[in-house]
Amino acid sequence: MSATGLRDYLDGPHKAARDLVRDGLAANAELLDAGLELSRSEYRDKVFDVLQQITAEGHTGRGFPKEFGGQGDPGGFIAGFETLAFGDLSLMVKAGVQFGLFAGAILHLGTTRHHDEYLTDAIEGRLPGCFAMTETGHGSNVQALGTTATYDPATQEFVIHTPTPAARKDYIGNAARHGRMAAVFAQLVVGGESHGVHCLLVPIRTAAGDPMPGVTLTDCGPKLGLNGVDNGRIVFDRVRVPRTALLDRYAQVDAEGNYSSEIENPDRRFFTMLGTLVQGRVSVGGAAINASKVALTIAVRYANQRRQFGAPGSADESLLLDYRMHQRRLLPLLAKTYALHFAQAELVDEFVRIFAGDVADKSEHDQRALEAQAAGTKALGTWHATETIQTCREACGGAGYLAENRLATLKADTDVFTTFEGDNTVLLQLVAKGLLTNYRESFGKLDPLGTARFIAAQAVEIAVEKTALRTVVELLRDAVPNRNDSADPDAGLRDDAYHCGMLRFREEHLLAGVARRLKKGIDAGDEPFEVFNRCQDHVIAAGRAHVDRVVLEAFLAAVQAAPEGSVRDRLKELYDLHALSTLEADRAWYIEHGRLSGPRSKAITALVNELCGVVRPHAGELVDAFGVPGAAVDVPMVVPSQHE
Amino acid sequence: MSATGLRDYLDGPHKAARDLVRDGLAANAELLDAGLELSRSEYRDKVFDVLQQITAEGHTGRGFPKEFGGQGDPGGFIAGFETLAFGDLSLMVKAGVQFGLFAGAILHLGTTRHHDEYLTDAIEGRLPGCFAMTETGHGSNVQALGTTATYDPATQEFVIHTPTPAARKDYIGNAARHGRMAAVFAQLVVGGESHGVHCLLVPIRTAAGDPMPGVTLTDCGPKLGLNGVDNGRIVFDRVRVPRTALLDRYAQVDAEGNYSSEIENPDRRFFTMLGTLVQGRVSVGGAAINASKVALTIAVRYANQRRQFGAPGSADESLLLDYRMHQRRLLPLLAKTYALHFAQAELVDEFVRIFAGDVADKSEHDQRALEAQAAGTKALGTWHATETIQTCREACGGAGYLAENRLATLKADTDVFTTFEGDNTVLLQLVAKGLLTNYRESFGKLDPLGTARFIAAQAVEIAVEKTALRTVVELLRDAVPNRNDSADPDAGLRDDAYHCGMLRFREEHLLAGVARRLKKGIDAGDEPFEVFNRCQDHVIAAGRAHVDRVVLEAFLAAVQAAPEGSVRDRLKELYDLHALSTLEADRAWYIEHGRLSGPRSKAITALVNELCGVVRPHAGELVDAFGVPGAAVDVPMVVPSQHE
Repeated sequence: MSATGLRDYLDGPHKAARDLVRDGLAANAELLDAGLELSRSEYRDKVFDVLQQITAEGHTGRGFPKEFGGQGDPGGFIAGFETLAFGDLSLMVKAGVQFGLFAGAILHLGTTRHHDEYLTDAIEGRLPGCFAMTETGHGSNVQALGTTATYDPATQEFVIHTPTPAARKDYIGNAARHGRMAAVFAQLVVGGESHGVHCLLVPIRTAAGDPMPGVTLTDCGPKLGLNGVDNGRIVFDRVRVPRTALLDRYAQVDAEGNYSSEIENPDRRFFTMLGTLVQGRVSVGGAAINASKVALTIAVRYANQRRQFGAPGSADESLLLDYRMHQRRLLPLLAKTYALHFAQAELVDEFVRIFAGDVADKSEHDQRALEAQAAGTKALGTWHATETIQTCREACGGAGYLAENRLATLKADTDVFTTFEGDNTVLLQLVAKGLLTNYRESFGKLDPLGTARFIAAQAVEIAVEKTALRTVVELLRDAVPNRNDSADPDAGLRDDAYHCGMLRFREEHLLAGVARRLKKGIDAGDEPFEVFNRCQDHVIAAGRAHVDRVVLEAFLAAVQAAPEGSVRDRLKELYDLHALSTLEADRAWYIEHGRLSGPRSKAITALVNELCGVVRPHAGELVDAFGVPGAAVDVPMVVPSQHE
Repeated sequence: MSATGLRDYLDGPHKAARDLVRDGLAANAELLDAGLELSRSEYRDKVFDVLQQITAEGHTGRGFPKEFGGQGDPGGFIAGFETLAFGDLSLMVKAGVQFGLFAGAILHLGTTRHHDEYLTDAIEGRLPGCFAMTETGHGSNVQALGTTATYDPATQEFVIHTPTPAARKDYIGNAARHGRMAAVFAQLVVGGESHGVHCLLVPIRTAAGDPMPGVTLTDCGPKLGLNGVDNGRIVFDRVRVPRTALLDRYAQVDAEGNYSSEIENPDRRFFTMLGTLVQGRVSVGGAAINASKVALTIAVRYANQRRQFGAPGSADESLLLDYRMHQRRLLPLLAKTYALHFAQAELVDEFVRIFAGDVADKSEHDQRALEAQAAGTKALGTWHATETIQTCREACGGAGYLAENRLATLKADTDVFTTFEGDNTVLLQLVAKGLLTNYRESFGKLDPLGTARFIAAQAVEIAVEKTALRTVVELLRDAVPNRNDSADPDAGLRDDAYHCGMLRFREEHLLAGVARRLKKGIDAGDEPFEVFNRCQDHVIAAGRAHVDRVVLEAFLAAVQAAPEGSVRDRLKELYDLHALSTLEADRAWYIEHGRLSGPRSKAITALVNELCGVVRPHAGELVDAFGVPGAAVDVPMVVPSQHE
């Protein structure tokens, strides 16, 4: 097999956008070593310079409307952004802050006046900006932010203020050095009444780089990774901005100080605003999946040439990748990377579909569903990156620890993905909650109390029926004929209907169980927080089970749609390995719930081993197909001749 | 409960040595920030300076014989070394290279002449040295090293040479900058005949710091962590050293070029030499366990004061540590850290017992058993550190990613522990192999071929019977009366005989299964490498099961020996949590093998949750008892007032 057909299939509809970034990465290959050789401050400036340069080349506005210099292609924009993860991740994050978060907030939360005044400058990099949401005291619970924006009708200004140390804006990318303006999330207080969190544009630095009056900017200092990004802290001391600084798409304040919004429920309003920013989560998940591809490319190529310990009767030692244990460590992760790639592609398609028209046209249901899908893919994709890069590092021994072989930097840079753009644990709760409440309007507060109360109020059984548990259980009964049949434990193990049925059963069973436990506790009059907390691990397991199923089905659909021949054959083998590994990982649960017999469970483990052997001969081509540019993966331990 | 009693019990017999290092760490607290603020080269020099300083204070010779300025207290030496892991880990590793590896090689592999000439200078830091074993081409398979030491009888010299690029010494600590002499492992060639790997002392730098003639020294450059250690590469171009440079405790070459050794079998000779260096593995495992304590101290204290999301009817948000999921993430790791602490203490006791007398007095069986125990504890302890520090980082969100909060540095510095001093996967194979061959003399080659052949030759059943499988199975039948009894799935779950019986059953069953598969394959005439490789994952699972059991029993013994009252009560709760978490983690296996019913398996999961709640109120004191000095854990996110 040549890797080309597979690579084209992976690149999909946004191949051109991906290739453009690949070329740019090759052209800026020296940035890959910048983090090792420069001081932190030089590294930050270098990243800023490269960002300005690619901005000047017109790549960064792809996702924005044409009237502001963009190309109206959000799918291509995300695909290009993901591809940046093949290179220096500080550059990628810096681009994400500027074009995804800052310019995205202006686009989605602002109105014509903001678009006309700022958007072109933001897209073309002339107005470096920050996204100032997180505070020292609040990351996950954004509704509880402490910063205030109080309207003063006398001057028609908002007063931005940090009332307590915990309300300090923290970890804000672009704040320590380059940012000139910040999209600040604050409690909007009008006429003495608080209307919840809204976003305002606040200048933080002069063109000369000095802090604006009343703004204190400090540096978060060195981090585990991403040291090319200048994360900082912002404290506001009664900083005044004009009334027009409010990004007023969803809520307006008139000159006299009258607050209005077409969305009456404050929770719905908040989540509607937040929902327009879903692109950040979509992008981080994709970036993490691509960072995994870099690590796997390096580790698989290394294992395909590194020998250690002798095979009998041969002068040669054996290749690492011929060892069962080494296959076991790397190949299921390779298969899962493919699975996540296709799940991410599906998510991007859905994102494009929802965001193609005007925001106001979208149904709330579709938008909430997209948010849940983005949250789930982000959580699984970023945890997968952490696990994969760690495993690749260990699989390359001491060489993997040296910075020159890139795994060290990848590991350090990607580590924060599991907690930024939403802590993964909180995100999986969000996924489960969406499923439990069946995307009703009341889908609101993220806090456990809200969830528990809602579920108690809505008569859980209805929600459960709506998720069609019964139907699924019945379908399964047919789809899994050899259930618990130890006479033929291998039967149908490579049947995709079996895999999907098993994952769907787990998801529905976990959800129904959570719903029952929540309702039982509430009915018994127990304290709602306690009720929720008692089954928090159960809730998160349900969320994860859902995303596992979505990912598996996305992979299966991609296999079925693939060109016949070697591309589809290779994908089917990887799909099988991924499906069986997923079942194996949670086989205890399936046995506990009567869906697997002991002998069949053992047969799954044996089949995972066998499938590792099936995939192994193609491993080199399977990583070639990721199309990671040579500059990013031709490291000394793999290509020593280029470095000595 | 006050943490003091528990801390004293944890510190055990080497409390004085630990406290001395704690005091030193507090006195050198500024080193903790050195890695963030200095250039790599300044940081290395700073670490070297601090090392010289603590050497001058006489702490570092504790483990060496009194006649060379030591204190003859190897147990105290290791305890002190482990405690260094509370501080800057570059300093710890640099100390380990100098006093553990370099001086240790002279002590254990050399004879009086080497001791008299070098040992005092090495211990007192006047002779900075390297341990030059690993090569670019060979890490795990040390017997296949490429460097040669060829005897030239005409001049009575050895010629040290690097014949191929792969034979370059690599990742050698102290080589890039400070080392003046190296203990070099090379194939000893005498009279045209190779006698396998031996160790020789080779000067690599002049007192002025220039490379010796024929020696090329290069820098491995930046690493993921431990950047205060100057790892380098060494290439020898026919470098001549006198005949006396051979560390000749186990093999001698006379002036005429006659090779002799009291150990005839070259494999046994090699492993005897290597075995004397077991202290390195013992020390790394202990260091990793202590690094976990630092991370847990930070993360538990953070979770005990950080609030996020509201509890109903309260103005306050809830403490992170009151969330079920947060308890689930941190507390089983806390319990396992205690378990590993006691397993490590037991290992150090055994090390002291074996190394107290003269090396020659030790039985080979005891020595091999110690090596296996050290290998297993090192593997589990270092993987535990990687997992724990990662989990703690994530549990602290974005704050955990900032270098100022220390988790980032801990993560980066400890990461290499899983692969240095022996790759963990290879080490678990070693453990399993030792059990399979019942520590016979033939315990030799590390390679799979040797293992498979040996097992085939020795009639596996005998070995299996010796490990007393049958007796254990019978004992179990009595010890686990409610086996698979779904009528009362909770019965006896907190009974320690049940825990030990289950872990012992798993170990013996896995071992017997491996032995049967190996024998069956060999009997069938299959290629031995293939036979071994087919069940490599099984072999490693057996090794891990053994170590799990040893760790559990060590914890249980420590609980039983603890002072009655709150110390023993707290330990018993942690022990239960650890035991049940261990069973839960592998519950699929137990169900598959008929040792758990579905309902009982679910009861275990429920009990782990319950035990998290039991341990939670004491979590603060349980980390206080680790006695990590304030300088290492009073980070801004936990103690903001000290930093602003």
